[in-house]
Amino acid sequence: MYRTHNCGELRISDCDKNVTLSGWVQASRDFGGMTFIDLRDRYGITQLVFNMEDDQSLCEQARKLGREFVIKIGGKVRERSNKNPNRPTGDIEITVQSMDLLNASLVPPFTIEDESDGGDELRMKYRYIDLRRTPVQANIIFRSKLALETRRYLGQAGFIEVETPCLIKSTPEGARDFVVPSRMNPGQFYALPQSPQTFKQILMIAGLDKYFQIVKCFRDEDLRADRQPEFTQIDCEMAFVTREDVLNTFEGLIKDLYLNTKNIELADFPRITYDDAMRLYGSDKPDTRFEMKFVDLTQTVQGKGFVVFDNAELVVGICAKNQAMAYSNKQINELTDWVKRPQIGAKGLVYIKYNKDGSVKSSIGKFYSNDELNTWKELFDAQPGDMILIMAGDTDSTRSQLNELRLEMGARMGLRDWNKVAPLWVVDFPLLDWDEDSKRWHAMHHPFTSPKVEDIEKMQSGDFETIKSLRADAYDMVINGVEIGGGSIRIHDRALQAKNFDLLGFTKEEAEEQFGFLLGAFEYGAPPHGGIAFGFDRLCAVLNGQSSIRDFIAFPKNNQGRDMMIDAPASIDEKQLDELNLIIKRTSES
Amino acid sequence: MYRTHNCGELRISDCDKNVTLSGWVQASRDFGGMTFIDLRDRYGITQLVFNMEDDQSLCEQARKLGREFVIKIGGKVRERSNKNPNRPTGDIEITVQSMDLLNASLVPPFTIEDESDGGDELRMKYRYIDLRRTPVQANIIFRSKLALETRRYLGQAGFIEVETPCLIKSTPEGARDFVVPSRMNPGQFYALPQSPQTFKQILMIAGLDKYFQIVKCFRDEDLRADRQPEFTQIDCEMAFVTREDVLNTFEGLIKDLYLNTKNIELADFPRITYDDAMRLYGSDKPDTRFEMKFVDLTQTVQGKGFVVFDNAELVVGICAKNQAMAYSNKQINELTDWVKRPQIGAKGLVYIKYNKDGSVKSSIGKFYSNDELNTWKELFDAQPGDMILIMAGDTDSTRSQLNELRLEMGARMGLRDWNKVAPLWVVDFPLLDWDEDSKRWHAMHHPFTSPKVEDIEKMQSGDFETIKSLRADAYDMVINGVEIGGGSIRIHDRALQAKNFDLLGFTKEEAEEQFGFLLGAFEYGAPPHGGIAFGFDRLCAVLNGQSSIRDFIAFPKNNQGRDMMIDAPASIDEKQLDELNLIIKRTSES
Repeated sequence: MYRTHNCGELRISDCDKNVTLSGWVQASRDFGGMTFIDLRDRYGITQLVFNMEDDQSLCEQARKLGREFVIKIGGKVRERSNKNPNRPTGDIEITVQSMDLLNASLVPPFTIEDESDGGDELRMKYRYIDLRRTPVQANIIFRSKLALETRRYLGQAGFIEVETPCLIKSTPEGARDFVVPSRMNPGQFYALPQSPQTFKQILMIAGLDKYFQIVKCFRDEDLRADRQPEFTQIDCEMAFVTREDVLNTFEGLIKDLYLNTKNIELADFPRITYDDAMRLYGSDKPDTRFEMKFVDLTQTVQGKGFVVFDNAELVVGICAKNQAMAYSNKQINELTDWVKRPQIGAKGLVYIKYNKDGSVKSSIGKFYSNDELNTWKELFDAQPGDMILIMAGDTDSTRSQLNELRLEMGARMGLRDWNKVAPLWVVDFPLLDWDEDSKRWHAMHHPFTSPKVEDIEKMQSGDFETIKSLRADAYDMVINGVEIGGGSIRIHDRALQAKNFDLLGFTKEEAEEQFGFLLGAFEYGAPPHGGIAFGFDRLCAVLNGQSSIRDFIAFPKNNQGRDMMIDAPASIDEKQLDELNLIIKRTSES
Repeated sequence: MYRTHNCGELRISDCDKNVTLSGWVQASRDFGGMTFIDLRDRYGITQLVFNMEDDQSLCEQARKLGREFVIKIGGKVRERSNKNPNRPTGDIEITVQSMDLLNASLVPPFTIEDESDGGDELRMKYRYIDLRRTPVQANIIFRSKLALETRRYLGQAGFIEVETPCLIKSTPEGARDFVVPSRMNPGQFYALPQSPQTFKQILMIAGLDKYFQIVKCFRDEDLRADRQPEFTQIDCEMAFVTREDVLNTFEGLIKDLYLNTKNIELADFPRITYDDAMRLYGSDKPDTRFEMKFVDLTQTVQGKGFVVFDNAELVVGICAKNQAMAYSNKQINELTDWVKRPQIGAKGLVYIKYNKDGSVKSSIGKFYSNDELNTWKELFDAQPGDMILIMAGDTDSTRSQLNELRLEMGARMGLRDWNKVAPLWVVDFPLLDWDEDSKRWHAMHHPFTSPKVEDIEKMQSGDFETIKSLRADAYDMVINGVEIGGGSIRIHDRALQAKNFDLLGFTKEEAEEQFGFLLGAFEYGAPPHGGIAFGFDRLCAVLNGQSSIRDFIAFPKNNQGRDMMIDAPASIDEKQLDELNLIIKRTSES
């Protein structure tokens, strides 16, 4: 037996017990006659005492132990004279009577403290050491708890967890698939699922009524920061539901998770249409921890001779509370440079400072009188001391640029506080999105999303603007400006699905080849259904007020899609390639 | 809103309530003035009544509904005059006042009854219809419950569920990997995990202490009946444990699952060594629902001039209780033919019938007197009316053949009753297994399995028989003759792991290339650890007394590894192959 207790559970009430503990040497302190060792495991740290007077040989062995050595000790629990109130076990220590060295350790390549001195790549290569650090381990344990709570909630709500297959069929629609060559079917490939979308719809047609799955999904995309080729979804679907049913059920889930993992009680989530989100925040995932809503100035400002505004499709501003004094000319210039960076791409930035002394200072004083500028104040509900920032240009880019500026100002002003939780639903997304490059419509959500009932008729229209105006019965859940989930009511009618494929540029043959099984299933009594999927990695991060999903993945891949620890991907044997009937192309680069 | 209640919950106490239900038309009965419809969903069936007198037009619509049409109805709950005691809703019916047709259905390709008329391939192609059948749906729901209970038990026992990666590295050891070409790393491949073995060991080295995961695993093997290319494991690992700790923890899990899903209380599981299992049952997964243990006759029978026995390495028999009368000469011949089939490959079968009248009848009466044969009786504890069946030859084949015969006799005698649950642990497996074809040792469990402590010294021996006799600290859990789980205490010492790789014929370079990260991790304070993995699909089947795992998988693949519903695997676009830098080899066959 390696232990009677773990390193986090002994208390003053355990005094005089003989115990056996096992764990890692976190630290060691030598005071001549006495040696103290902090013994660590997942559960905590317990102080061990070795005494030269009691057992010289044991004490000398203890002095030789290095950091991360693994030992098993037997001893007696004693009250500490010098208590440590920061540690649950801090009232006691163990007088060690026997010790076994279970394993030695080389000196770790970085320190195993809350703040490590190891760089990212080093910590990923030695992930088994990084995972010993308390905050990293806490993240992994939190993830496990979050999954358990999710399953409890959904199980109690009557959802059945169903495992859908990992080896499925590649479809050109959407992102790029990872594929898996089939040895038994030469020249053919499986694909790894980007999501179990069609399978969960099939389960609704099969009468499972309420499905969920916490499931790995795969996308072979060029990796941006904080994207992983494999990621995890909470994937859900319900039959015989309207949008209201789905929203209520999953708002309930997220409220429950906040309550049970963070002890935070959330009020009902506000809802906002996609159109309003774009109009008021310039984003379909607005950070509503702070106001600073967009104010449309187009009507107000045009026709006064300022060509930048006169020629703009949209002139729009935000009010930064109490920032008039905070921004010198130099700082305004710096902010203007910031919005002009290629990542944002604004052409410029107009400011108006409403100073506390009643004076007005602006970069457009030449074109607008102070009286005029003072009337704009009311549109923003601005007070003396506030600063208004204005951008102009075509609607889409200007909104997007002002969204970046709003988020930046919010951050600078300390308004994006992770102690605050601001959830909301964004609803009524457009059904289709015109792609200028490929000159075709793309599904804004995915091709199985139902248009809103009142828009179904309009799908027959040949008019571009009408098609563009079609709204989908789709919704996203956003928390603190992060999209954590999204879903829709699905199409359950074969003809409507065929029409949607048609709008998306599928030929009948393509639709049949790729999704024939689903179209077929619609003919055998498909019920109305809808669902949602949450990004589980991201949900873990958001609940903890952190921005990197990588910190919540036990074995993440780096930005080149490599596992640094096991060194994958790697080349495989010629024999394996032969069996798979494949040849690697020798490109000029290779 | 589609429903106020589901189709399984209304009771007599709900009478006079106005309700809305949605579901599928299971059956329809027309009695002139009245039409009855059974409306079905996941939760049950509720009877609807349409009355010509009340609403002629509605009644006429109802008459036109076909099987599997999807409808929504509004109506009032009424007590039935003609109650159906076989149905929880059988005391009530709904007088329908309004109806919406939600979707029509073609005539299903097979009947949606407990016993369907659909063949296997047809049912797999139309899996969404097959899954509407109550027993199939019950299996999928059971699986969900079993996973939930497993997580509850392990969560309460302090286990953390950690997701290990799906995109890992291919290793030639073990079964064949599925591989995934990496677009970003041309010519390189990920592999899908056959199990998270090395990752869970890494998690122990990382200090996670207790890990589990219900996880998809993949093996590209030629599919035998009831093998799936993707399957699910309950994968577990614990640090600072001996074999006792692991066995107790997971015996607890299985007892808990039987109690909470089947209301069966299991006694403590017997343990048997591998050697004893082979000696007494000729199998490392004995079906212990019945005795019929092997009796070694080699010493007893040799030297009496019967060359078949005299030349045999092993002569061994079983006693079939009360079967003397049941087997005529013709039936004995049939049984002899059965063991001589190539699948079993025995050379022959010797019988001795101890008749109730005291006479003895045997196929070897020429060589042994009745007195002699009567003395054998005691070895088997045979009674008048019993029949002894004996086989002879080399030890391994004879044991294997007699194992098949024992199972067959058990089945014929009704002793393999699935209402009985006979679990046991098989322990002390051999560490290594000599493969005559490749002339090398293979790991009986896997290369990370620890030898038993007392056998570690012997690993240095150059002697074949000594190496063969090495025992591993490995164990299997067997229920009713089915191996449902297996595991071992692992090696946690770099030198010992290196020695094991050496015995397995790895060069130092091969060991380093494939498992260098693990060998490296052993140098940074690896704790003693061990674990187990259960086949989750099989566990579902065994708990339900069924033999086919396919019935517990929502979307199984057929014996050619094909998903019949979505028709995968399939060919992919040339563009995809190009991006992956791959060419499909044109073989002479293709």
